Amino acid sequence: MALLAGVVGFRGYSGVELQKILARHQYAAPVLLEHRADSAPEILPLGHQGHQVLSTQADEVAAAGIGVVFLATPPEVSMTLAPPLLERGVKVIDLSGAFRLKTVERYQQWYKEDHSQAQWLADAVYGLPEFYRDAIPGARLLSNPGCYPTAANLALRPLITAGVIDRSAGVVCDAKSGVSGAGRKPSLKTSFCEVTENFSAYSILNHRHVPEVLMNSGLEEREFSFTAQLIPIDRGILETIYFRTQNIKSGAELLDIYLAAYAKEPFVRIYPEGHLSDLRRVARTNFCDLGIRFDAATGRAVVVACIDNLVKGAAGQAVQNMNLMFGFIETEGLL
Amino acid sequence: MALLAGVVGFRGYSGVELQKILARHQYAAPVLLEHRADSAPEILPLGHQGHQVLSTQADEVAAAGIGVVFLATPPEVSMTLAPPLLERGVKVIDLSGAFRLKTVERYQQWYKEDHSQAQWLADAVYGLPEFYRDAIPGARLLSNPGCYPTAANLALRPLITAGVIDRSAGVVCDAKSGVSGAGRKPSLKTSFCEVTENFSAYSILNHRHVPEVLMNSGLEEREFSFTAQLIPIDRGILETIYFRTQNIKSGAELLDIYLAAYAKEPFVRIYPEGHLSDLRRVARTNFCDLGIRFDAATGRAVVVACIDNLVKGAAGQAVQNMNLMFGFIETEGLL
Amino acid sequence: MALLAGVVGFRGYSGVELQKILARHQYAAPVLLEHRADSAPEILPLGHQGHQVLSTQADEVAAAGIGVVFLATPPEVSMTLAPPLLERGVKVIDLSGAFRLKTVERYQQWYKEDHSQAQWLADAVYGLPEFYRDAIPGARLLSNPGCYPTAANLALRPLITAGVIDRSAGVVCDAKSGVSGAGRKPSLKTSFCEVTENFSAYSILNHRHVPEVLMNSGLEEREFSFTAQLIPIDRGILETIYFRTQNIKSGAELLDIYLAAYAKEPFVRIYPEGHLSDLRRVARTNFCDLGIRFDAATGRAVVVACIDNLVKGAAGQAVQNMNLMFGFIETEGLL
Amino acid sequence: MALLAGVVGFRGYSGVELQKILARHQYAAPVLLEHRADSAPEILPLGHQGHQVLSTQADEVAAAGIGVVFLATPPEVSMTLAPPLLERGVKVIDLSGAFRLKTVERYQQWYKEDHSQAQWLADAVYGLPEFYRDAIPGARLLSNPGCYPTAANLALRPLITAGVIDRSAGVVCDAKSGVSGAGRKPSLKTSFCEVTENFSAYSILNHRHVPEVLMNSGLEEREFSFTAQLIPIDRGILETIYFRTQNIKSGAELLDIYLAAYAKEPFVRIYPEGHLSDLRRVARTNFCDLGIRFDAATGRAVVVACIDNLVKGAAGQAVQNMNLMFGFIETEGLL
Repeated sequence: MALLAGVVGFRGYSGVELQKILARHQYAAPVLLEHRADSAPEILPLGHQGHQVLSTQADEVAAAGIGVVFLATPPEVSMTLAPPLLERGVKVIDLSGAFRLKTVERYQQWYKEDHSQAQWLADAVYGLPEFYRDAIPGARLLSNPGCYPTAANLALRPLITAGVIDRSAGVVCDAKSGVSGAGRKPSLKTSFCEVTENFSAYSILNHRHVPEVLMNSGLEEREFSFTAQLIPIDRGILETIYFRTQNIKSGAELLDIYLAAYAKEPFVRIYPEGHLSDLRRVARTNFCDLGIRFDAATGRAVVVACIDNLVKGAAGQAVQNMNLMFGFIETEGLL
Repeated sequence: MALLAGVVGFRGYSGVELQKILARHQYAAPVLLEHRADSAPEILPLGHQGHQVLSTQADEVAAAGIGVVFLATPPEVSMTLAPPLLERGVKVIDLSGAFRLKTVERYQQWYKEDHSQAQWLADAVYGLPEFYRDAIPGARLLSNPGCYPTAANLALRPLITAGVIDRSAGVVCDAKSGVSGAGRKPSLKTSFCEVTENFSAYSILNHRHVPEVLMNSGLEEREFSFTAQLIPIDRGILETIYFRTQNIKSGAELLDIYLAAYAKEPFVRIYPEGHLSDLRRVARTNFCDLGIRFDAATGRAVVVACIDNLVKGAAGQAVQNMNLMFGFIETEGLL
Repeated sequence: MALLAGVVGFRGYSGVELQKILARHQYAAPVLLEHRADSAPEILPLGHQGHQVLSTQADEVAAAGIGVVFLATPPEVSMTLAPPLLERGVKVIDLSGAFRLKTVERYQQWYKEDHSQAQWLADAVYGLPEFYRDAIPGARLLSNPGCYPTAANLALRPLITAGVIDRSAGVVCDAKSGVSGAGRKPSLKTSFCEVTENFSAYSILNHRHVPEVLMNSGLEEREFSFTAQLIPIDRGILETIYFRTQNIKSGAELLDIYLAAYAKEPFVRIYPEGHLSDLRRVARTNFCDLGIRFDAATGRAVVVACIDNLVKGAAGQAVQNMNLMFGFIETEGLL
Repeated sequence: MALLAGVVGFRGYSGVELQKILARHQYAAPVLLEHRADSAPEILPLGHQGHQVLSTQADEVAAAGIGVVFLATPPEVSMTLAPPLLERGVKVIDLSGAFRLKTVERYQQWYKEDHSQAQWLADAVYGLPEFYRDAIPGARLLSNPGCYPTAANLALRPLITAGVIDRSAGVVCDAKSGVSGAGRKPSLKTSFCEVTENFSAYSILNHRHVPEVLMNSGLEEREFSFTAQLIPIDRGILETIYFRTQNIKSGAELLDIYLAAYAKEPFVRIYPEGHLSDLRRVARTNFCDLGIRFDAATGRAVVVACIDNLVKGAAGQAVQNMNLMFGFIETEGLL
């Protein structure tokens, strides 16, 4: 019998993506959970029946036999919804930033808001499978990584661990994202006429995803410069990462580090030296593509990392985590 | 009587922009010069007469009373066309990279091609008016700056001159351009279906515009990391520039350096600290917009520079140079 | 001394376009009029001063010496603002649909709202200069045509007048518009991620612009089928108009009718038979481009009409009307 | 054992789509067939092996055990490749227009080219499963319908058969397509900068897809007006179809005709009256969505039909046909 997987925030872009992935999953089935009244039901073709929608009330969720709930909701909503579900034994995979950082202070510093569920921070497992695969199966509360940090950490962590980045010169991560990363709520900043034929930087050095990169890569804040920018496309994140190398003489050595780190990873692809991926190659996939260019004369290197922000950066990685938590094949529903 | 200004390459994107700007110029009038047979005349509305088109043959150009010729052509075409015109006393404003670098060796190193007109390299004046306004009026051969270097040099040179950039940590310039920068010739890389909903890096650390930035900013190659990337838009360049500061304590000091350097410049706009421009603000204008963000705790800074690649990055700056060469008001045709 | 021209709704897309056109007008100068408190002043470059903003209070407007006010506002706002201004002798050019139809009943039928200013309906002059040039100079209240009807009427009226359309078979106008036509207020329907890589029909047979076409072309409602559709672009309207001809034998005869009707019109361009314009050709211009294709074997014909919805479809035509009302050269500010 | 399915033209947009669909098909496996030397092999991630590529030589194809070949090639290439394969007993599904029309004269009239394989025209089965499901299993040479006719015929044929369209007034089909419909070969017309922020009509009354609509719907040429237009998007076709009704009094009657015709069809969806689909709803699916609006007062009706031109309009329908030809479940690989 299929695992019943609740989805809160199912009308948002990540929520729709979750529905799609779960609909083709062999061992799980989506159940939509409504956390607020909504006046505009979707228009369906004649004869097509919409999904049944349950409430997010924890007793009802548990009684319905739902084994895991995905929260594709803002942090403050996730903080409210997660604890009662967890207390009834329902596992939670939270796609918001509510439980990603390890302390209330850290959360307040970067999110500029209070955190009402401090006791759950320590319990939450950070779900980047490529690095924390062992901890994920035992998670009750799984905190799904941010979209930008997913790409940045996959690109940076193996190189930092290997000691080939000269941290004294700093690391620059110039990040660009499609508009779906801003969510589905209408705003002037994401209006078509403001975005088309435009390109803009919107968060320089102070993006709330920065501490997630620091936490996982081991970099200090002063060593890591990050800018988020808006591409006039629907989906996709490309990060161009600059650093000076040490202890290596060729790009092949950088590639070898990646190949060693990701040899068995189903969702990380490494390109031949000098070749790069782009956003079309990762669109609607759970892949993170990595490519490098190395300048031997000066030791400078650039890594280009690409993901689909709604898949590996959100819904796809969330299902990858679900697969690990419930003992399914890691790639189920994702290839 | 108006200055007759020849335009070679008038069907290309920079050439069309030159036609538009010259058509509204009070003291100059465009004359189209054809350097190759072309089979498809433009379809015009009934009763509308197309421009007369002359050849690029130097004697005919001189005989027609043309005082200046804009070359919106590839470098190898510019090398062929410029010398005979110059020898007949016709001034030349070249929008290609043919005469931007100062030595044949430098050209061969970055353009991977021979240079057939070494004798003209020394004579060419590099036309970035904000820095070389004094030399431009005397130019016979004016070399119009590249699109990427225009933004990068306007952003970097005053700060480097003021000594506030810690060059030992390196400067990163992450550059993004609209597709018109690649020219009008059809190719798979600029086909609609390959570009839309995509974003890609195409030239990392080895772009041929790099030596122009080094030459004008004073940076060494090992200090300057540059990546060019393709935005799915028609026009516009945004450069995100990262560096560590020295000798300053606030963003206001950076702004003061810019304000001092550009106080009298009609085409450079500086934004209040923490505010940035974007590509919509500079589209179809000759402005270069500069904005900064400074992190006082760590001394890191980011500058965002925006131009329209076809205007300040090509045709607009070319006319700005023509205005200076012929004693017209610098902003004529450009506001 | 310049005519002071007030602009209400100056932050909207038509309002910004009005500002641009008036800023380069030789005989008029824009004055911004605020009809509600607005919390977010635009960020300007350092040293650049914003426009002074006055209130829309009629006494103040008159006292400031403002001779004409453009209302780029919704119909219900225009109804409130226009009468007090008119009573103080200030001319009004209204870009909304408030005063386009001739009776309250007609307005209620198509706008599904009450009309509070019936007494002004008869007084308003419909400002399509190509047909009503004689009436416009005497207008106090000028009602600027809707964007869709501007293109449709310019395409249809001369042909209907000439009797070459077989009305019994009906006329189809399939209209497509860029997103700016929906205004600047954020909504899900105009959010980037909903519009990009999409195309949708949003108003079939019942668009409120239909009665404007009937009123000017002489067609009956049953003879005219109109659909409005959203193109994922910023600006531009293309209408594909289908009909059966009568009393003619060639496309040249259709062209002759257009040429006779528009021979002296500065803003209507007719293309050679079989050639069509497109939205790039009219973008940021006040032109309406018309092209035809005629099938001699069956007598069917298709007209393609293109305008920029913000220029000939709104702000540009409004200034064209101002020019006629105040005796300026009709094309001033618009070429 | 899986059916080996050859794909010629596998680098084109339809060919890539075929590869994707076949890769997830349970009973078939793609084999790439190269019909010309190609200099640029695709760059693959390290450790990922590309598909083996065979030649299109008919003996080799047969010897390799390939049971069916998809030709995603231009008509003149399909004419050359199909006969030798068919003679060796390999079934052929041709996505070009080579074998869609029934006579050489008809082909010459609309394609303006000779047809070299007249003997195969009669043998070819036109593969629109919703109408010709019985004939498809026995096909040797299956001619896959054009993208525009697929949507037009699904929209029109049931209504014409039911006699509810007043043909004397004519039927208008205003069709819009994404750019991938023009194929992958670079050209100025499909260059990004020419297409973005543009919209254009490119084939009025004389598109070569017209006879396919006439042939299947029963309409006469004089009764059917068709225009093809280019939307600045990657994929999708929306057709807005106008006609006058007869013998009906409500939109519900039109819907009933559709519901009766398509009750058991897995890939046709009918929307409630007054509601329409759009291109996002059908993107990357094999669905054809139909919606109507009916004006009871005048009897006019409009149908909006949406498909993905690369799926239901090409590769998806081709696999649907393969499923029928080989006795697989019709929806395999397509849901």
